[in-house]
Amino acid sequence: MNDDFRFDLIRTDSNARAGVFHTPHGEIATPIFAPVGTQATVKSVSPAQLEEIDANLILANTYHLYLRPGESLIADFNGLHQFMNWQKPILTDSGGFQVYSLSKSRKIDEDGVTFKSHIDGSMHRFTPEKSIQIQEALGADIIMAFDECAEPEDREYSQVAMSRTHRWLERCISAKTRSDQALFGIVQGGVFPDFRKQSAEFIANFDLPGYAIGGLSVGESKKDMHAMIDIVNSILPGEKPRYLMGVGSPEDLIHGIARGVDIFDCVLPTRLARHHAAFTPLGRINLANTANSSDHAPIDDSCDCYACRNFSRAYLRHLILAREILAATLISIHNLNFLLELTRQARKAVLESQYEVFAHEFLEKWHSKSRNIPRLKGTE
Amino acid sequence: MNDDFRFDLIRTDSNARAGVFHTPHGEIATPIFAPVGTQATVKSVSPAQLEEIDANLILANTYHLYLRPGESLIADFNGLHQFMNWQKPILTDSGGFQVYSLSKSRKIDEDGVTFKSHIDGSMHRFTPEKSIQIQEALGADIIMAFDECAEPEDREYSQVAMSRTHRWLERCISAKTRSDQALFGIVQGGVFPDFRKQSAEFIANFDLPGYAIGGLSVGESKKDMHAMIDIVNSILPGEKPRYLMGVGSPEDLIHGIARGVDIFDCVLPTRLARHHAAFTPLGRINLANTANSSDHAPIDDSCDCYACRNFSRAYLRHLILAREILAATLISIHNLNFLLELTRQARKAVLESQYEVFAHEFLEKWHSKSRNIPRLKGTE
Repeated sequence: MNDDFRFDLIRTDSNARAGVFHTPHGEIATPIFAPVGTQATVKSVSPAQLEEIDANLILANTYHLYLRPGESLIADFNGLHQFMNWQKPILTDSGGFQVYSLSKSRKIDEDGVTFKSHIDGSMHRFTPEKSIQIQEALGADIIMAFDECAEPEDREYSQVAMSRTHRWLERCISAKTRSDQALFGIVQGGVFPDFRKQSAEFIANFDLPGYAIGGLSVGESKKDMHAMIDIVNSILPGEKPRYLMGVGSPEDLIHGIARGVDIFDCVLPTRLARHHAAFTPLGRINLANTANSSDHAPIDDSCDCYACRNFSRAYLRHLILAREILAATLISIHNLNFLLELTRQARKAVLESQYEVFAHEFLEKWHSKSRNIPRLKGTE
Repeated sequence: MNDDFRFDLIRTDSNARAGVFHTPHGEIATPIFAPVGTQATVKSVSPAQLEEIDANLILANTYHLYLRPGESLIADFNGLHQFMNWQKPILTDSGGFQVYSLSKSRKIDEDGVTFKSHIDGSMHRFTPEKSIQIQEALGADIIMAFDECAEPEDREYSQVAMSRTHRWLERCISAKTRSDQALFGIVQGGVFPDFRKQSAEFIANFDLPGYAIGGLSVGESKKDMHAMIDIVNSILPGEKPRYLMGVGSPEDLIHGIARGVDIFDCVLPTRLARHHAAFTPLGRINLANTANSSDHAPIDDSCDCYACRNFSRAYLRHLILAREILAATLISIHNLNFLLELTRQARKAVLESQYEVFAHEFLEKWHSKSRNIPRLKGTE
């Protein structure tokens, strides 16, 4: 195990954790939210703007970068850090989930996945070895095992996919040649407690620098998602970081942290921004709404991001109606900062042993304007 | 005359000038290029990014802002400066050129122009008084007289439009109520030396804080454009700033400054950027070209803008092919900085009485990769 990837668990507060994960590109204070830069750019936001909101770990997608511009070009730049000008930590996914999502244009077999490019229809093949080879060329700090996701409520397929994910993890570990990248294993198993337990035990058996929970936030209920996280995290080693893949929303972060998750990523904040939706402490708002047409207030007057320090809701709505690019940029900056600030405050609360109070207060406000909504579940 | 709008002519070098124009939102060192923020945003670039390249004066369009979001909303924010978060000087055009450009959906009469909105087809009417009223609501530092442009080579129409522009100037002056805005008159007259002389003399007759040359760069030859600028500037008072509207390209700036122009504006740098074209000292390049596919060099290694300090041509080309918004942002920043830096260097050259040498060297490089191109015309 490379000491480059030491995880210091600083404090726990019930199941919530505050830690520091060391990488060759600097320390990551956890819990953390990682903005997604699918094609080696966080959509509509520059690296300087990401630095200004203290983003740290960001994610890039192996499937997309393999197809365009191709991993060899990126390797020629000594990897993604130089290519996209991001000097802090980067994580690449394995491509597994993305080729799985191509549903009608991919075929999975024991050795790997054959799939059709969404760009030009050309045929390609990923195997565990190929995924690791590409991720080594991309040069991220954290790389992911090649896994197979299943329909979360299909018991038979969940077992097949889980077992294959286990066999593929062993092949990924064997294929790995670089010592300056941390390979995380991925737990699968759908919404089935017995499979999740079996998968977590299998994966935890390997001495890896971190572990991920895959196959969630893909259509299952929140209750199932929470139950699966609980089971998996009760098994994964406490002294290693835990990454809940593809999650999520502010409330998902709150619930995930309460259950011992350290790392999150999701396209949600930037995708919502391009559809004019912004996070506020009182829930999500749509800035295109007429209600904002002459509002001098910022998106969130408790927020200190560039968008909230300088621009009114009325101006943002004008940019949206005028189809100006700056709308996407400003709302993306705000939404990303909202999630980053949420994890910073969560960390502070854990360090002060106040996480449950913090989570309760956040969720109460967050749901306060919703109708028919949920009695406050606290950190259930 | 308001002392807020004093123009200090610091130095002349042949016909080229270096000055300082004072406005309520700060000094403008001339010659200067003004980025265009049509809809109260310079497309794809944030105010902070504009500040980083030392942009100063920016332009916004009365026609667009009148239609959307409407000048009363902007007045409710005490004007454009607060609405769009730009604390340096702003100039608004009169809407005259833009309604003229609607060609098939506008009708011009002696009193004003009736036109159809490009957004929803609704009917509207601009008069000189209405244009001033809107521009007072928008609150820019420099506002423009409502003018009529003509097909530049249509002699009969040029005369009609010029005469109307003169009568409308008097109405604009009468309509103006704010003392903290500088109203610039506009010289028209197509490509006809006698009309240009007549128009410049008429307009110069009013003691205005600045004068503009309209109706150029609309299809006439460069030779005609240069000849008209020469005639007009030989008549306009030397102690006031001169603004060449809607120009331009790097070579147009060089030639315009040589002829005594102080202020330029154009959508070219940001529009080109959205079409992947970038300025370099050796001419324009298209970053989408395969030639850039693995090029580690920045757009221009002599440029110190954010894009050139941090990103390769290969990365920019990747962003373009992947249709990522960041491409437009980075290339816009570069192209704007290129023109701003060009005017900064031109000013320095004037101050050192080296403008002709500077202009010659710039144009020689700029045209060096062009085929069939022009023997160097220096500052002809």
